[in-house]
Amino acid sequence: MSADSNGAVVAAARGARALAGNPVRVAIVGATGYVGAELIRILALHPHVRIAGLVGRERKGDPIAHIHPHLATRDLRVFDHVPGDAEAVFLALPHGAVAARIGEFLDRGQTVIDLGPDFRLHDPADYPAWYHFDHPRPDLLPGAVYGLPELHRAELAELGTRPGAIVGAPGCYATTTILALAPLARAGLIADVVVDAKSGVSGAGRDPKADLHFGEINESVRAYGIFNHRHIGEIEQELRALGPTPDANPGVPGIDFLPHLVPMTRGILSACHVRPTRLVTQAELDELYATAYRDEAFVSVVEHPPATKHVLGSNEFRAFTRVDERTGRVLAIGVLDNLVKGAAGQAVQAFNVVHGLPETAGLLQLPLAP
Amino acid sequence: MSADSNGAVVAAARGARALAGNPVRVAIVGATGYVGAELIRILALHPHVRIAGLVGRERKGDPIAHIHPHLATRDLRVFDHVPGDAEAVFLALPHGAVAARIGEFLDRGQTVIDLGPDFRLHDPADYPAWYHFDHPRPDLLPGAVYGLPELHRAELAELGTRPGAIVGAPGCYATTTILALAPLARAGLIADVVVDAKSGVSGAGRDPKADLHFGEINESVRAYGIFNHRHIGEIEQELRALGPTPDANPGVPGIDFLPHLVPMTRGILSACHVRPTRLVTQAELDELYATAYRDEAFVSVVEHPPATKHVLGSNEFRAFTRVDERTGRVLAIGVLDNLVKGAAGQAVQAFNVVHGLPETAGLLQLPLAP
Amino acid sequence: MSADSNGAVVAAARGARALAGNPVRVAIVGATGYVGAELIRILALHPHVRIAGLVGRERKGDPIAHIHPHLATRDLRVFDHVPGDAEAVFLALPHGAVAARIGEFLDRGQTVIDLGPDFRLHDPADYPAWYHFDHPRPDLLPGAVYGLPELHRAELAELGTRPGAIVGAPGCYATTTILALAPLARAGLIADVVVDAKSGVSGAGRDPKADLHFGEINESVRAYGIFNHRHIGEIEQELRALGPTPDANPGVPGIDFLPHLVPMTRGILSACHVRPTRLVTQAELDELYATAYRDEAFVSVVEHPPATKHVLGSNEFRAFTRVDERTGRVLAIGVLDNLVKGAAGQAVQAFNVVHGLPETAGLLQLPLAP
Amino acid sequence: MSADSNGAVVAAARGARALAGNPVRVAIVGATGYVGAELIRILALHPHVRIAGLVGRERKGDPIAHIHPHLATRDLRVFDHVPGDAEAVFLALPHGAVAARIGEFLDRGQTVIDLGPDFRLHDPADYPAWYHFDHPRPDLLPGAVYGLPELHRAELAELGTRPGAIVGAPGCYATTTILALAPLARAGLIADVVVDAKSGVSGAGRDPKADLHFGEINESVRAYGIFNHRHIGEIEQELRALGPTPDANPGVPGIDFLPHLVPMTRGILSACHVRPTRLVTQAELDELYATAYRDEAFVSVVEHPPATKHVLGSNEFRAFTRVDERTGRVLAIGVLDNLVKGAAGQAVQAFNVVHGLPETAGLLQLPLAP
Repeated sequence: MSADSNGAVVAAARGARALAGNPVRVAIVGATGYVGAELIRILALHPHVRIAGLVGRERKGDPIAHIHPHLATRDLRVFDHVPGDAEAVFLALPHGAVAARIGEFLDRGQTVIDLGPDFRLHDPADYPAWYHFDHPRPDLLPGAVYGLPELHRAELAELGTRPGAIVGAPGCYATTTILALAPLARAGLIADVVVDAKSGVSGAGRDPKADLHFGEINESVRAYGIFNHRHIGEIEQELRALGPTPDANPGVPGIDFLPHLVPMTRGILSACHVRPTRLVTQAELDELYATAYRDEAFVSVVEHPPATKHVLGSNEFRAFTRVDERTGRVLAIGVLDNLVKGAAGQAVQAFNVVHGLPETAGLLQLPLAP
Repeated sequence: MSADSNGAVVAAARGARALAGNPVRVAIVGATGYVGAELIRILALHPHVRIAGLVGRERKGDPIAHIHPHLATRDLRVFDHVPGDAEAVFLALPHGAVAARIGEFLDRGQTVIDLGPDFRLHDPADYPAWYHFDHPRPDLLPGAVYGLPELHRAELAELGTRPGAIVGAPGCYATTTILALAPLARAGLIADVVVDAKSGVSGAGRDPKADLHFGEINESVRAYGIFNHRHIGEIEQELRALGPTPDANPGVPGIDFLPHLVPMTRGILSACHVRPTRLVTQAELDELYATAYRDEAFVSVVEHPPATKHVLGSNEFRAFTRVDERTGRVLAIGVLDNLVKGAAGQAVQAFNVVHGLPETAGLLQLPLAP
Repeated sequence: MSADSNGAVVAAARGARALAGNPVRVAIVGATGYVGAELIRILALHPHVRIAGLVGRERKGDPIAHIHPHLATRDLRVFDHVPGDAEAVFLALPHGAVAARIGEFLDRGQTVIDLGPDFRLHDPADYPAWYHFDHPRPDLLPGAVYGLPELHRAELAELGTRPGAIVGAPGCYATTTILALAPLARAGLIADVVVDAKSGVSGAGRDPKADLHFGEINESVRAYGIFNHRHIGEIEQELRALGPTPDANPGVPGIDFLPHLVPMTRGILSACHVRPTRLVTQAELDELYATAYRDEAFVSVVEHPPATKHVLGSNEFRAFTRVDERTGRVLAIGVLDNLVKGAAGQAVQAFNVVHGLPETAGLLQLPLAP
Repeated sequence: MSADSNGAVVAAARGARALAGNPVRVAIVGATGYVGAELIRILALHPHVRIAGLVGRERKGDPIAHIHPHLATRDLRVFDHVPGDAEAVFLALPHGAVAARIGEFLDRGQTVIDLGPDFRLHDPADYPAWYHFDHPRPDLLPGAVYGLPELHRAELAELGTRPGAIVGAPGCYATTTILALAPLARAGLIADVVVDAKSGVSGAGRDPKADLHFGEINESVRAYGIFNHRHIGEIEQELRALGPTPDANPGVPGIDFLPHLVPMTRGILSACHVRPTRLVTQAELDELYATAYRDEAFVSVVEHPPATKHVLGSNEFRAFTRVDERTGRVLAIGVLDNLVKGAAGQAVQAFNVVHGLPETAGLLQLPLAP
């Protein structure tokens, strides 16, 4: 079995062992929330994984049925600590929580897949700016990889050959917006961009809050996070990096991002209204998107405006793009399921890449409609 | 009783008579749809109106209970013709239908409140452009008034002193967008604008369609009408007219308008993302909106992002506006109930003005929440 | 002005004064919840009432806009105490709370309309049985009237001639079920009855709870309160009292009542499956219901199975009944809006009767559909 | 390879071949509806199946993306005929359609899995009674098996050893109700039963209808099919057959079944209110249900009232049962996803049994919540 120079078993080696019949042992921390439930749903049927531990604060062996009734058929329990023999740890925790205790996982040689924001941003200064905390481990930020396989597949794979792999899995709005705009950013076409996003309520988490009560959400739409949504930081970071030069997309620092809550449980739609840096044709757009996504297992470019329901429960992302003959503007729309491709599914996808497993392992479920 | 020079009884005179105890006799054409139902709901309790006739194609006296079960307590029936003694006619018909037969109403001296688009646009060339038909009565367009009382109150009142009054009641998206942007347009501040709108499904009408099936709409969001929604025409017409000069708002011809269907029955939220012609402060915005709407019975400027549920079932419009310190952009959000302030309620409001009735008559119902 | 023998001004006299132009001054205690909001919505437009005070725990003048954004156009504030000059007090408080402090209101001669259960049940022993508390003022129970005007109109009117009037406004499920079954109970026809009820979520109140989160309720139905829902007590009390003899309806003590939460905000549907004491015909059923409800302003007997949406936002109750030729069973279905006819609207209706006002005052709003 | 005495290849032999790597070739007729979509969703990932043909009336090679956008990633097309080489045919057609043309499939030796009602009822007289048509092939009814594996597993397996296998897959309400009541019926405990069922809208099919419009369904509950729902026939047939003697459950012919439409897309909850033939204890109930379902892969007996969301998108059925100490009544609740365990999933489960495949093949997906 391959290992790093210090003898530690690295992720890629664990993946190889898994393909040979010894599943990777994974733990899920934050298993009691919606993202935690979704990680369980996916990983419980992953062919190369065994769930070695579920962790929730103050839980001492509670059966999963009491926490997530829909998963009651699985013989799982939630404890208050991470098992030492876990080889990879998925963390679905509030911002700041992982940064503060990541040493614990790295010391054990566990791959860290953080579904929170603590390892998404490369520049330590972005943490106080967007999250209002000083990052306690800025030394680790350069080594962490932004877990969007469509943009960082090679880096993720390379990560698997080193011990102490840290993946900063993207935010749900960020995934939708970055994938919708990536082909335009890569071509340096974004002179100005307004991103108007709509999300189901599960993205706000499971904790009971007055404004997430059914009576408040149902039959209603509202905007929130006016001009200060935290995902703006990672969206700008990733889109800037895609340009042929750092300033090729003058619209990218300064994105106008507005999220809305709509009365549904799952799904995000990002409508990206772009003023292009030059005139583009529909044919050119079609070619840009086809080239970008032709070989992606989870991305489709569609001919009609996609509905979030078209991807419900799946790891799919769908993109749609049109140029307006009248005004020259470009519209790019992306949809995904915020708990799957926007969170748990994408984290598993990144984990698969890091561990050298088939990228689609555990993620082939088709969307559920109607 | 006052009358015009030819002896015809004009709307204002009818209003005066109504205030003295003789209700204005109104007919509703297109009474079987959602907008028709809403007109009945409002007019049935209007203190100065009597419903003289409900009209639906091929109906021969069907009781209202069979058509609109929620209105079953009203002793009303739907017929296939407009009663001759109606003094005002509300028309909720497909585009083109009113233009083709308006002579019939004018000949009888009936005030026409058209809830369709046939008398909204002043320029006959706009009809083939946005609605794909040639207007059969372009001669009548100059005399019709766009029925948005907040912008055209004096003209509507003046209309009541002439026979043959025609009101082109605004579209639902148009009302939301125009009222959200009017103070900015009036100040010549719109350099560029993206309007991202979200609507409940009732705006698409009552006819059964595959894509309005509950199973398609529920748990889903999608965009539609990419770059070609018909309401763009009237939005641009009205916003241009508001500027201090026709070209004061360079962003107005060329508005980027994108509507979405969200899983709710009623409500529209328009998020208007504005690039201003110059830097503005929040204080300046507050003053502009306060000045514009201070005396309006149905418009409030609110401090927190409004939800469509806050106005459900009422004739209210709520506006919210913010400047982004980071980018200089301005956000203006408007919400309303598409069937009330976006259709039937506003039509009654305009009717009240034309007939010299209290503008709020029949419209004081408070929003229904949760 | 008429008054009772001790010189206290009684409710009927206050009503008379209101009709002459001096509105009855009312207070709403528990104004921050859903029922409180609905009381405000109705009473703010009641022609013979003035809201003299809104009361919410720990509130010190908070504007209504911060608590109920949909009511923001009303210039009202919430305080932490009941104004002394209120003539009637509506109380929307948890069970037990009113019983404990009712002396305060009676001492001031205020009419008490309790929307909680503390004065619904006549037998003190029913309180520990259904609500798990010992009633602190059993002496007041005999004088309180169950506030269902369709069954107790005369008693409510008579209450208005005495000081210290106490109305125990019915529960939402109780109203739906009692009105659906009353004509059968009156005829002694209930040999056995299963009541299977479905409610929107607003009936569970406004407090944030994990199981009322949008993500839990949406796209889901579940039963709750298995065999022990508190409204069973009042349903059995009222239905027994309706029989020609106390034992005429052998199925009434022992009702099988099962409530369900369905993914909607408002509305209750009670399906009452009755095994009749003898064979009945459809004509007989029709006659029983027509006779019972012919003169009721808020009750309709309908020909098709009613939907809760048919009464949304109104004080209407609709009944539907059918006999099954195959099995002899009788089905009675009732629908209402749980916050209006099931709570606030009915409380206002009872208040109107007690105060000698027109029973429909403030309650004529038509249902809101779609 | 095993075959029947006439040399025809029987289903069991096809299953054996599939396990060895040659997938069973299946066709889906009625592929354009909701049940058709669900069959595709499941069968496309079934490890031992290959979709050999999708059939929809008047379709000539339309890509699946145009018909079911959520399945757009599958390279499938819909044609107007069944491919001759299909070994099994799933039929999701209106009642009567399969009975009329079943010869076509039998002649080709194809296993028939009919998701409609044409082969559910054993007594030809039940067809005119419940479905208003005379069955054209009463000769085939005795040989068809009711496709509820939990009750008829051995018969289904035996069917696989004969050519011309016909499975009549159960109705959605029937499955929910029969599985909820089966342990009671088997013990002869049903003296009387009221079944009050609630269904999502997808059970009514995909065709656009006025009363399935989002605006009609949302925020509303209503009953329908008063006393005459077609599934009553099969529920009574199956429950009667389960009793120790045909008359052991006096309540079974004469079941009171009332379905409701609730505002959700998927899910059925049947609340079965039973008057038992004798007193039962909770321990006895627990034992009955545990015994009945202990070894079932898709049935769980749960401790808390189950929500339909707990099984969404899965082939699971969950049962809950309680005895009421106060009245002696027994409540049995069952939930399932009407398109999976109530239709497509169960059909695949039965197909698996007939073909000798692992019963859970293709059906292991976990429920999707929230």
